[in-house]
Amino acid sequence: MWYDYPAMPERVFAQEALERIGQTVVLAGWVNSIRNHGGIIFLDLRDKSSLIQVVLSGELLKDARKLRPEWVIRVRGLVKQRPKHLVNPEIPTGAIEIEGQTLEILGQSEELPFDLGEKKLKASLSTILDYRPLSLRHPRHQAIFRVQETIAETFRKTLKKEGFTEIFPPTIVPSATEGGAEVFAIDYFDKKAFLAQSPQLYKQIMVGVFERVFCLAHAYRAEPSVTTRHLTEYVGLDAEMGFIDSFYEITSLAERLIREIFTAVNEKNPKELKMFRATTPLLPEKEIPKMKLRQAQEIIFGRTGRDCRQEPDLTPEDEKEICQYAKEKFRSELIFITHYPIRKRPFYTYPDPEDPEYTHSFDLLGRGMEWITGGRRINDYQTLLAHIKKWGNKPEVFTTYLQAFKYGMPPEGGFCLGLERITMNILGLKNIREASLFPRDTKRVDIALK
Amino acid sequence: MWYDYPAMPERVFAQEALERIGQTVVLAGWVNSIRNHGGIIFLDLRDKSSLIQVVLSGELLKDARKLRPEWVIRVRGLVKQRPKHLVNPEIPTGAIEIEGQTLEILGQSEELPFDLGEKKLKASLSTILDYRPLSLRHPRHQAIFRVQETIAETFRKTLKKEGFTEIFPPTIVPSATEGGAEVFAIDYFDKKAFLAQSPQLYKQIMVGVFERVFCLAHAYRAEPSVTTRHLTEYVGLDAEMGFIDSFYEITSLAERLIREIFTAVNEKNPKELKMFRATTPLLPEKEIPKMKLRQAQEIIFGRTGRDCRQEPDLTPEDEKEICQYAKEKFRSELIFITHYPIRKRPFYTYPDPEDPEYTHSFDLLGRGMEWITGGRRINDYQTLLAHIKKWGNKPEVFTTYLQAFKYGMPPEGGFCLGLERITMNILGLKNIREASLFPRDTKRVDIALK
Repeated sequence: MWYDYPAMPERVFAQEALERIGQTVVLAGWVNSIRNHGGIIFLDLRDKSSLIQVVLSGELLKDARKLRPEWVIRVRGLVKQRPKHLVNPEIPTGAIEIEGQTLEILGQSEELPFDLGEKKLKASLSTILDYRPLSLRHPRHQAIFRVQETIAETFRKTLKKEGFTEIFPPTIVPSATEGGAEVFAIDYFDKKAFLAQSPQLYKQIMVGVFERVFCLAHAYRAEPSVTTRHLTEYVGLDAEMGFIDSFYEITSLAERLIREIFTAVNEKNPKELKMFRATTPLLPEKEIPKMKLRQAQEIIFGRTGRDCRQEPDLTPEDEKEICQYAKEKFRSELIFITHYPIRKRPFYTYPDPEDPEYTHSFDLLGRGMEWITGGRRINDYQTLLAHIKKWGNKPEVFTTYLQAFKYGMPPEGGFCLGLERITMNILGLKNIREASLFPRDTKRVDIALK
Repeated sequence: MWYDYPAMPERVFAQEALERIGQTVVLAGWVNSIRNHGGIIFLDLRDKSSLIQVVLSGELLKDARKLRPEWVIRVRGLVKQRPKHLVNPEIPTGAIEIEGQTLEILGQSEELPFDLGEKKLKASLSTILDYRPLSLRHPRHQAIFRVQETIAETFRKTLKKEGFTEIFPPTIVPSATEGGAEVFAIDYFDKKAFLAQSPQLYKQIMVGVFERVFCLAHAYRAEPSVTTRHLTEYVGLDAEMGFIDSFYEITSLAERLIREIFTAVNEKNPKELKMFRATTPLLPEKEIPKMKLRQAQEIIFGRTGRDCRQEPDLTPEDEKEICQYAKEKFRSELIFITHYPIRKRPFYTYPDPEDPEYTHSFDLLGRGMEWITGGRRINDYQTLLAHIKKWGNKPEVFTTYLQAFKYGMPPEGGFCLGLERITMNILGLKNIREASLFPRDTKRVDIALK
């Protein structure tokens, strides 16, 4: 059986019918499309596993004629092999069809705003989001979240294998931390609290407890700008580990993780990748190349004449250029850019002891986008305290966080991936909203806010 | 090796040293306690895996004398078997000790507010929470979150095996849904948005997409009351499945899940259970008993003379009584109470067709507490619409949710467990705050809010 315990005890999934040729089975699902040939009606039935063709005729026609797209039905029928010339290569069950014997209507649907039977939804992104519960049923939109599930699962699996403990940090926080006003305030009884911009401070605290921790945590950014890459609520895949000798142990872990994710997506989601004509990034057999920001800037200057060498960060244009360079030079679509200047990174970033204006930090770039960001953190209490002040923050805002360092913290570091961002990058989606089930932005929370 | 890739390449975990007797190893961790015997210093070193005794003497004494609890160190030393009479049965590595050869200080700690070396922290819950980054390091507090991780992991694993898809629903929502004013408002740019009281509406929508879905989702309750069982932010383990014939398919799934959780906790966390002198609930070999609310009320009346037969729900006292009954009568510490009256359940609850004042809903009770709550939902659009109005809500508030039903939804149902609540119930903790890493309540968000 496809799964251990189907609901509706007799029911099988469409995919399972492939192994039941000549037998009578019970199927259930949605009417994805209907072709009425008068004395015979062909349905594409959609369930969790696949589409499958159902043929209804004779006594069943009376009920079958009522059916409309998205009606929910249960059918008992005979699994028949199709003649070779009628095999449909477009669907996984194209070699068979179901000859209906009984038909039961479990749920009805009103008329649809767009046709779910089309290979690609013919609707604008805005309409797709206005009808999210419906558009998500389209195989192409489902596919995005099957890939997303693989990414999340592989993140957990890889880190568990490396001895990390999963934690559940809070999202309500006492103050707008990590600098910046881009934080949502909550009416917290008669006080104010805030939504966490990331689980950063909590995962660091937890290194003091479990040494290596990870979490899948919702994070919130009140950025007023509208872009195709940002959401106001997203899921961060965060990891943090203690007892490191060098920040390259962090980049190594990030590299192992991203390779595991690509392997898993290729293994579990070949159909979904094909739907988007997507491939996971090309990687060198050995290590993903690494380069200091300054080196990257020299290369960009050399290749384009664009002088970004005094900038503290790369622009999207620079990121594209250095990714192109890595692909040509190293046959790698990903590249680590390291040693960002201290003024461009958060207060907790570890300064390079040999070059203290720069930090032991990195971004993993690919295809002109950021995939992962991370680095080593300051673990000495006094240094951290000094940095907090230097960055213009008040230490009392960080009371809880600072305790972790006051009471002994090993050398540590970590990184973060955005779940929607990675999904988008792998599938080559144009807008991050497509990679979020119910995307939140400045204007939309399901519907336009009043 | 205990794990695939230790950080600090040479390092081994304390637990691994058990297999390295006669060899020189590198360990790293926190000084859990120190016993200074003058010419020789004994340390209990704590790392992710265990405590281990380290013996320092000779040239190492100069640095060793500086050490204080929670200092972070790295030690190279010889793994030696202890003579039988010196074996310490209190720690897993009690049969060995490390004869130090080098000592390196990686991090320092200020003086602690309480002694982490005690078997049980000698501090009030309030102090424990004031020093959360520190108190979580105590083995007894760590243990709670190791059990919690097992619960979360088993929830996912069990549902994946049964064909469920993991989803990541949003926590920012457009309106205070599910009735009740106990919802947190967010300043969302120049508008108001809210924190989800549960992922209920989204998991139901997603049944229309993937049939069977689950999520681990943060949920928020602005209940002003202070109890030992409630948090303002908690993690809900939510499952929802379509294509059911009967709501007993939901109770069966809940039963399989809770049994899997108990099995996993017993397998993976025997040490942790022992620490709390806890056992998972006694269960009958066959099914967990089920009883309608009205039957339970008759039994309670019969046993105690307390007449609760007109009440729409059980009081905590009633819950204790019926759990006691189940234990005596069925040798089961868990019992399903079913068919709650319609007025006591949310608008989406499915009325019993044979007795429409009651519903196809259940609570799984155990040891006088609620463990799981769930039921079948209304899947017919018009009925749902009518219920929304009857419950005094405005349908336009549910635009997105209602689409899922307008466009065809199969018969479906599901349930929810609170992660902190289950952890608390299994370990027999007195206050749910102990089962949350950073508990949020009306007064505390890490620290007392100003």
